[in-house]
Amino acid sequence: MVQERIAGSRFVGGVDYKALNEHSVIDFLSPLENASKLLGGTPTTWTVREVGDGNLNLVFIVKGNKGGLVVKQALPYVRMVGESWPLPLDRAYFEHEALKVQTLAAPHLVPKLYHFDTMQAATVMELLEPHIILRKGLIKGIRYPKLAADIADFCALNLFNTSDLGSPAAEKRERQARFSHNITLSKITEDLVFTDPYRLSDMNRWTTPQLDKIAAAFRNDAPLKLAAQELKWMFLSRGEALLHGDLHTGSIMATESNTRVIDPEFAVYGPMGFDLGAFMANLLLAFFAQEGHATKEDNRETYRTWILDTLESFWTLFEEKFLSLWSKGGKGDAFLPTLFNDDTGEVALEAYRHMTMARLFQDAIGFTGAKMARRILGLAHVEDLESIADPDRRALCEKRALTMARALMVGRTSLSTIGDIRDMAETIAKEPVA
Amino acid sequence: MVQERIAGSRFVGGVDYKALNEHSVIDFLSPLENASKLLGGTPTTWTVREVGDGNLNLVFIVKGNKGGLVVKQALPYVRMVGESWPLPLDRAYFEHEALKVQTLAAPHLVPKLYHFDTMQAATVMELLEPHIILRKGLIKGIRYPKLAADIADFCALNLFNTSDLGSPAAEKRERQARFSHNITLSKITEDLVFTDPYRLSDMNRWTTPQLDKIAAAFRNDAPLKLAAQELKWMFLSRGEALLHGDLHTGSIMATESNTRVIDPEFAVYGPMGFDLGAFMANLLLAFFAQEGHATKEDNRETYRTWILDTLESFWTLFEEKFLSLWSKGGKGDAFLPTLFNDDTGEVALEAYRHMTMARLFQDAIGFTGAKMARRILGLAHVEDLESIADPDRRALCEKRALTMARALMVGRTSLSTIGDIRDMAETIAKEPVA
Repeated sequence: MVQERIAGSRFVGGVDYKALNEHSVIDFLSPLENASKLLGGTPTTWTVREVGDGNLNLVFIVKGNKGGLVVKQALPYVRMVGESWPLPLDRAYFEHEALKVQTLAAPHLVPKLYHFDTMQAATVMELLEPHIILRKGLIKGIRYPKLAADIADFCALNLFNTSDLGSPAAEKRERQARFSHNITLSKITEDLVFTDPYRLSDMNRWTTPQLDKIAAAFRNDAPLKLAAQELKWMFLSRGEALLHGDLHTGSIMATESNTRVIDPEFAVYGPMGFDLGAFMANLLLAFFAQEGHATKEDNRETYRTWILDTLESFWTLFEEKFLSLWSKGGKGDAFLPTLFNDDTGEVALEAYRHMTMARLFQDAIGFTGAKMARRILGLAHVEDLESIADPDRRALCEKRALTMARALMVGRTSLSTIGDIRDMAETIAKEPVA
Repeated sequence: MVQERIAGSRFVGGVDYKALNEHSVIDFLSPLENASKLLGGTPTTWTVREVGDGNLNLVFIVKGNKGGLVVKQALPYVRMVGESWPLPLDRAYFEHEALKVQTLAAPHLVPKLYHFDTMQAATVMELLEPHIILRKGLIKGIRYPKLAADIADFCALNLFNTSDLGSPAAEKRERQARFSHNITLSKITEDLVFTDPYRLSDMNRWTTPQLDKIAAAFRNDAPLKLAAQELKWMFLSRGEALLHGDLHTGSIMATESNTRVIDPEFAVYGPMGFDLGAFMANLLLAFFAQEGHATKEDNRETYRTWILDTLESFWTLFEEKFLSLWSKGGKGDAFLPTLFNDDTGEVALEAYRHMTMARLFQDAIGFTGAKMARRILGLAHVEDLESIADPDRRALCEKRALTMARALMVGRTSLSTIGDIRDMAETIAKEPVA
């Protein structure tokens, strides 16, 4: 019994694993009845395009005369680095398992799942059209009226349902055990987010020489390093909820009326603030990058305001949704509602709920800072900033973002409202930069 | 690979499982070479005594002409309740696994392991002689000069080594996954320690009618119930270290010069403060029980002082030892020492270490309170108090202990030194009781 719980991950990428290509993906799909039905016509009529622009996987879009789908296959190494950095294929198992959990919590906010192939470490899922990667939309200056509410819902539903408020202990402990084996991908987060930006590492890079001084200052900033390590310890030890684990704007596909979250291969139990911080960090990076995308025709002022409106709404709606789920009472073993069934009990519990949200806010903005800094001083950068061709202009945006990152990490326990964060971003964006 | 990590627990108590008796335990041992060697002579000369006075297991002491050993076998139900409360046999697996981990961290403070039999859910281990259960020693008024230092070492070594300070993330995540499957025994803790004492439950009992009023007050005390549930949430979600999980004075065997910790079948990853609180709670219960054991010849005044001296030394030595392990640098991924290699870094980290201990102290005293209350209002009581025959006299001790329990749980964030705790115990012990 115990064994079967994680047996699924054992055979991922078996002896017959072979990276798919635009031809073999057809042979892979044709025996699958639901895929054939969805695509329509005969396999010879299907068209294939490999579109994986991420770091770790192959992604094929396959279309037939009736419809389309996506095949995502894990590669045994980090695509952007090459075969010198191997990565276990079982991450495809953890991604699929996480998608199943998220489908239960928020089916309208993730792609539909059609099939998982253990041997090939490949998932067949819904083709999201005409969605584009949110990050690209934010660079273009597109407004997404539903974004804040949808990601707030995604976070609230998933974090609540998989926590000890929403899941009975037996169910949660089993799920946590399963995802605890997602060790290699968790280690990437541990190193790249919380450690490398604060030390010399061959994998770091930054806009040089413009950021050399601030990068060195980060490496010698004791309070900042303590904050980073405290956040790391939280990431390692606080199994509060099943995290998406990589909830940046490149893991969201959106149209103006529809939002979907993809790519949860970093899923692991961790502190709730980590996912919330990842999303907020990437909004703030988009905000600080706007100055680099301003043109004579569009100074991006109103769009920057929209980004901060989205940030503010996101937190406000998340808090509202999470509190409402908690007030309705979850199936979890923490804070059993029956213990607080009288008037004083209900009042006290309601006060406690708000205190919990205040603490969660401080965790979240700490992780926000860490996730901002790593995208400027660490290995993996963001297109929002990278696409600013002029290095001086880019460095200006990056310095502002780093100033904010540090303030959030070191000052998180003295900040208490999302309005404070908005004000801070607006102030820093106006200040002259050394 | 992933599968093999926990495969050990799968076959515990297989089809051929049979509760051992004083005869069959000889047949069980005789094929084991190391056991035979240890005991000496032929199996027909071995003597057996069943001594299990705990709640869940059979314990046989087997002796030969050369030496002795212990066979501990899990029963498929709670012994003190009967077959109506079934319990999974795989707890023997978790106990043995925990003993192996503890043997690596602190071999001198646990019994030697000789053999584990998966099918029979039985462990063969060192016979501790002339040790007695510490709780019985505390009732008798025996002083243990090494106790504080030994349990401080046991806690510091085990909690540090299995935490993210002492274990690399890959090792810790695997270990946490393994012990996360110890679901049923964890659930007993969750219910009996953190929930039942604060609600009506058929399993609760207390000295009645003397404690009826205070028991009702506990069930209607909103701040106290919030504290209990907050501690429960911590127990459920903070995987800081591998806990012993049941570190009361009945899980310690001692002579005046030697101390061993036994029975880690509740082992699970959880907050470090839980183990520390368990031990401190049971010292405080012993302290408040002394008044019930006082006689004309011995008013137990100096012994009570010794118990509080032990409590104070325990925390002081634990803190010292934990800080010294941390200062030397662990193998863990949190707070990598290399990040703080310069002068300001070292100073800042040292300050942070002390802040961490201050937080841990507050966690620990919160759990202390919870572990005291559950032994007076919940299902499982302690002999320290139960052995006070006069119910009025017992109730007096219990009321004082409950007063302290509540003060620790609700006031934990405003208490900061072990001296405060000692003073509180001394004050409460002198106050008149309603």
